[in-house]
Amino acid sequence: MSSKIRLGILGGGGDSLIGVLHRVASSMYDKYQIVGGVFNPNWENNISFAKTLGLSENRVYIDFDAFIEEELKLPVSERIEVVSVLTPNFLHFPMAKKLIENGFHVICEKPLTTTLSEAKTLESALKKANTIFAITYTYTGYPMVRQMREMIQSGVIGDIQKVDIQYYQGWINPILLDKSLRKTIWRLDPEKGGVSCCIGDIGTHAFNMAEYLTGQEVTSILADLNTRYDDNPLDVDGTILIRFSKYVKGVIRASQIATGEENGLEVKIYGSKGGFNWKQENPNYLYHLTDNKPLQVLKPGHAYNGALSLNGTKLPPGHPEGIFDSMGNIYYGVAKAIRNEACDSGEYPTMHDGVRGMKFIEKCVESHKSGNIWLDI
Amino acid sequence: MSSKIRLGILGGGGDSLIGVLHRVASSMYDKYQIVGGVFNPNWENNISFAKTLGLSENRVYIDFDAFIEEELKLPVSERIEVVSVLTPNFLHFPMAKKLIENGFHVICEKPLTTTLSEAKTLESALKKANTIFAITYTYTGYPMVRQMREMIQSGVIGDIQKVDIQYYQGWINPILLDKSLRKTIWRLDPEKGGVSCCIGDIGTHAFNMAEYLTGQEVTSILADLNTRYDDNPLDVDGTILIRFSKYVKGVIRASQIATGEENGLEVKIYGSKGGFNWKQENPNYLYHLTDNKPLQVLKPGHAYNGALSLNGTKLPPGHPEGIFDSMGNIYYGVAKAIRNEACDSGEYPTMHDGVRGMKFIEKCVESHKSGNIWLDI
Amino acid sequence: MSSKIRLGILGGGGDSLIGVLHRVASSMYDKYQIVGGVFNPNWENNISFAKTLGLSENRVYIDFDAFIEEELKLPVSERIEVVSVLTPNFLHFPMAKKLIENGFHVICEKPLTTTLSEAKTLESALKKANTIFAITYTYTGYPMVRQMREMIQSGVIGDIQKVDIQYYQGWINPILLDKSLRKTIWRLDPEKGGVSCCIGDIGTHAFNMAEYLTGQEVTSILADLNTRYDDNPLDVDGTILIRFSKYVKGVIRASQIATGEENGLEVKIYGSKGGFNWKQENPNYLYHLTDNKPLQVLKPGHAYNGALSLNGTKLPPGHPEGIFDSMGNIYYGVAKAIRNEACDSGEYPTMHDGVRGMKFIEKCVESHKSGNIWLDI
Amino acid sequence: MSSKIRLGILGGGGDSLIGVLHRVASSMYDKYQIVGGVFNPNWENNISFAKTLGLSENRVYIDFDAFIEEELKLPVSERIEVVSVLTPNFLHFPMAKKLIENGFHVICEKPLTTTLSEAKTLESALKKANTIFAITYTYTGYPMVRQMREMIQSGVIGDIQKVDIQYYQGWINPILLDKSLRKTIWRLDPEKGGVSCCIGDIGTHAFNMAEYLTGQEVTSILADLNTRYDDNPLDVDGTILIRFSKYVKGVIRASQIATGEENGLEVKIYGSKGGFNWKQENPNYLYHLTDNKPLQVLKPGHAYNGALSLNGTKLPPGHPEGIFDSMGNIYYGVAKAIRNEACDSGEYPTMHDGVRGMKFIEKCVESHKSGNIWLDI
Repeated sequence: MSSKIRLGILGGGGDSLIGVLHRVASSMYDKYQIVGGVFNPNWENNISFAKTLGLSENRVYIDFDAFIEEELKLPVSERIEVVSVLTPNFLHFPMAKKLIENGFHVICEKPLTTTLSEAKTLESALKKANTIFAITYTYTGYPMVRQMREMIQSGVIGDIQKVDIQYYQGWINPILLDKSLRKTIWRLDPEKGGVSCCIGDIGTHAFNMAEYLTGQEVTSILADLNTRYDDNPLDVDGTILIRFSKYVKGVIRASQIATGEENGLEVKIYGSKGGFNWKQENPNYLYHLTDNKPLQVLKPGHAYNGALSLNGTKLPPGHPEGIFDSMGNIYYGVAKAIRNEACDSGEYPTMHDGVRGMKFIEKCVESHKSGNIWLDI
Repeated sequence: MSSKIRLGILGGGGDSLIGVLHRVASSMYDKYQIVGGVFNPNWENNISFAKTLGLSENRVYIDFDAFIEEELKLPVSERIEVVSVLTPNFLHFPMAKKLIENGFHVICEKPLTTTLSEAKTLESALKKANTIFAITYTYTGYPMVRQMREMIQSGVIGDIQKVDIQYYQGWINPILLDKSLRKTIWRLDPEKGGVSCCIGDIGTHAFNMAEYLTGQEVTSILADLNTRYDDNPLDVDGTILIRFSKYVKGVIRASQIATGEENGLEVKIYGSKGGFNWKQENPNYLYHLTDNKPLQVLKPGHAYNGALSLNGTKLPPGHPEGIFDSMGNIYYGVAKAIRNEACDSGEYPTMHDGVRGMKFIEKCVESHKSGNIWLDI
Repeated sequence: MSSKIRLGILGGGGDSLIGVLHRVASSMYDKYQIVGGVFNPNWENNISFAKTLGLSENRVYIDFDAFIEEELKLPVSERIEVVSVLTPNFLHFPMAKKLIENGFHVICEKPLTTTLSEAKTLESALKKANTIFAITYTYTGYPMVRQMREMIQSGVIGDIQKVDIQYYQGWINPILLDKSLRKTIWRLDPEKGGVSCCIGDIGTHAFNMAEYLTGQEVTSILADLNTRYDDNPLDVDGTILIRFSKYVKGVIRASQIATGEENGLEVKIYGSKGGFNWKQENPNYLYHLTDNKPLQVLKPGHAYNGALSLNGTKLPPGHPEGIFDSMGNIYYGVAKAIRNEACDSGEYPTMHDGVRGMKFIEKCVESHKSGNIWLDI
Repeated sequence: MSSKIRLGILGGGGDSLIGVLHRVASSMYDKYQIVGGVFNPNWENNISFAKTLGLSENRVYIDFDAFIEEELKLPVSERIEVVSVLTPNFLHFPMAKKLIENGFHVICEKPLTTTLSEAKTLESALKKANTIFAITYTYTGYPMVRQMREMIQSGVIGDIQKVDIQYYQGWINPILLDKSLRKTIWRLDPEKGGVSCCIGDIGTHAFNMAEYLTGQEVTSILADLNTRYDDNPLDVDGTILIRFSKYVKGVIRASQIATGEENGLEVKIYGSKGGFNWKQENPNYLYHLTDNKPLQVLKPGHAYNGALSLNGTKLPPGHPEGIFDSMGNIYYGVAKAIRNEACDSGEYPTMHDGVRGMKFIEKCVESHKSGNIWLDI
């Protein structure tokens, strides 16, 4: 009998990129066995995709309700234990809620929900159910992000005095330039994309990084968003002033019209004793600055790193691991939590992170619409 | 008889770093001959320093008034033609004004003056006098900054849609941490440093870069400054939201408490067709981004660069030139202007740039004190 | 019935790094199902490790001979189709030979064998058997390495005129410094490590890269190796002059005493029309140089890349993939070959590459021992 | 009376790049006054160029012999003290010899002479004369090169065990590709360029760097050069195996057909305790590697640097200085020596360095022509 955790998947079928990412991630530490799910609303696609994964037909379900109903009929020892929710954003809430209420652990793609109100409802449901819930802010899985968090926690850079997180992409630029294309993508359609495009999609990652790394919560924000064109209803760019406290400030900068940028999540955090620079596109280099010593460049897998970082490196220094490995680390953390093994609070982002993210999005939009004013968060 | 321009210098004696920078810059293209000046308020230091420069004693003056009086007695063919003003900030205004009014050309260190009002007065004086006036926003002299300006002007990146300029330093951090030290530096003393420390000193460079590169003027700003401590009266950090027009926005980020950063002036500008990244600490690399082609890295001295850039490179590609060379290029531009040779508008920053800088500083402080509101500029 | 390829594994149990690498790689494109193998010579460790993988006990074998015997009893439709050989180097030859002779496809870790003679025997066996055989020169799986190969093949940099491949590590330095430690590692023991340490382990990777990228074979070499200490019998460093033809030359530089270097495989190839630079530790950046255009930096996932490169990228640009993904691409290529799908010759290294590698090692040692003379290869 | 050193210049007139470099360098620390020379063999060009420098006509001479004759007539207190020799290579020897013999200090461009024999003659002349003689291996003037030297001297990286110096350029590629152009440049003409093109021009820089940094002499070399084409008589590429002692080896790699490379002088030095990486095109970053600590990046102007490095930095950290500044530092060192001030042996390259360079060139060519054999040096 396999000791692996039985994993179900909702969505992610066919050529879905997010599907590949989660499947590979789940395989990395030999902790999960994918046993079933609903990969596609179309039954034929669903079942044929499941076959490519080598799954038994009887664990592939026609829809989410059937998934719940049938799995609950199985003895606990055979039942799916944790479910990855990779469906479109508006389905995160109803699926996650029902899963939680029926005792399943959940690994949910971001954003948590489409509104803050839904997010809070989900948070309450989780409190009652007491299951494990993770939201995949993937970038927290990088070893050097974790190392930064550990070093900040242990006081290496002293009191935080400045936080600057950037997330610049350019992919929406060619779409936005072409008026006919603009209308065709769901992210720019408020009906489907919700209240925000850029902040909702990537600004939240930057915000999560700010709180994950500092271990502190942002207390207020002032946002200036940009739709670029009169007929484009949703933000594609924004700068958000943030405050942790009266004298600890920062900025979150997000854009999807930073032409030519790929996936430019960049961190700059400064404290009284030192600072850190880190860039997602070169995730294995962590730059540690101080007032009077040479710049230090930390890399994964070295003994000088802390446990949280080292746990997330599989090969010796110099063998670059990437974003699949980062997601793999989050899955690994969730596996530990499910199996009641010791697990650092930095190993996977939680419901709380998801709720904070939704709050951030809504407050940014509100601040912007109110004339760029400060709002508590 | 030398055809070199006769240059006088005010300030910059002894170990002054700014003095070395201007002297070397003036020598680079064999266009200037330093003939006299006032290097130090102390006469002995003044004259002994002048000797190390190999100057005739009779062109070293006891003070600025003597400088003007005596030089005016000389025939035009011997008289100092242009004067570099390297004195403390509060002296820029009176000296520059009198120099202008007496027909001297001026190369003035930044900031132009200590108040916007003075700056405007100076601007009026210049209009009457019609002499050459340059303010040394040194970083505009880098060949790849000039290349960026030329390419933006010629439409290579299309319509500007996002401007993000950073200027992060950490040097004030150790001073600020030590309460006793805080009081000792003139930059943190409103009596001497004026209304702003960080924005006044380096934020203005970032602002100048934004306008120099885009060829457009910022129309409004919203500033959030940080003094870090209750008993520190002046800003040491600030983030300023900027707008060029309704849908063309950006941000200026400046800090002197970005612990461990040295002189981190960094430019990110994005247009509808492409973008640019550039960093002052690695000034010979210009990154040109587009939606669908490989990133291009332009370097100085190549034939693919434009005239404005090539004029500012003395050696073949691969021979790194630095900040002295950058200042040298500004001096070169001023020399052309003085000699009535063809001179691109990008070859040296002007009175107008100086006035804009003062306006930026005052408006940032006002915006911050008024609760982070938008102000026209 | 799963359409996945049935994969067996020899070695790689417990904490084996190479085991993790191959398992994850095999999972990446949903093409393989691990069904059995021999993971450890110790039965208890073997079976308990197999359980962590969730395998059926009846496909875990007590040793390699039992593996062959029992698998052959199974109907072809259930039998393991391909076997990954991850055992110590001296076992590669006997295992691979028997696997080939019994009709199994093989994915073999490098080096192919311990002697050139064995390698040639294996090559003959493969010719008779006509099964698929891959040797995991992992670095050929990187998308930008593949892109380089494709661009060189299509003439982008013209005729090759200079090849310089570096592979610098420092890991053996602290071991070598401590005389007592020197004797403890198998790599420095000729009985276990064979005729060469540095060239055998990493020099071969550099050599393979030279031939993989250029599509040409090195014709002669002159090697200067270094054991660093009198009492150390095997090379820990070496520089090898190489010639492709009379006027096309190059150099391979390998070291394990490049103190502080991690895994510095670096490629510099120059042709009549352009050149390429690439570094393994930053594998997603390919630098394309020419005489008169800006340096171009190619990155994975962009439409400007060729098919061989794009096939090896799972996520959009800016999401860094690493060495697991690189190995995953090699497994993907082998899967195509096994399933008789179209497969580029660059998708996985072959028996021929393995034989070339063994020849390179033996000739380097011979050249060095003969006083650094040229030898054909 | 100026306390500046009276400097004469031979060559470097008109648009000469080397002329600009030396003039600016001489001005950097206010130590020299250019007073005269012979800038051009054509008298009109000579005198008109001298005027642009603002020199007195009576110190501009019709030729070198007149220079010597007339200067010697002047009282010592007015006479030129040091002469920069910037003429074509074949003139270095006769000019330097006569200057030395007449008591002038000399700053000579590299290569020292055109043959080793001349070099040795010059060395003997200098021993008799006891004047100051510097050869401008410019790259030794960079602050971080000097810092490397100091740290190696003080044992920071322990015993040297591996030296790898690269000097890759691509400029000759387009010339070489065009058969008609090949014949037109003096560097490829043995009559004018001497026995070597690539090794003579840039290989010597790499060699000098190896000895300058380690403080040790190379004892033997084995060179493989490449002319690329049958009808090209001189090397445009070469790899040279070097040995400092039996177990301390290295390699010098030089090329002018590394297509697209600009001025790629790169240093990698490894010792028992650590290593250094440095690149000329980014001269302000010195990478210090060790077995078990984070990579350290040293930059100029910080207090953690030694005196030799700090003396060569004029501005605070983060203000990039370049190759003019590097040459300026060499001039500064020579000035100290002329004025009998304390001067570190690393402040300027000497006659000995020049002689070593000539020996290296001749031995490389001999080794190559003899079938790539080891030769003592």
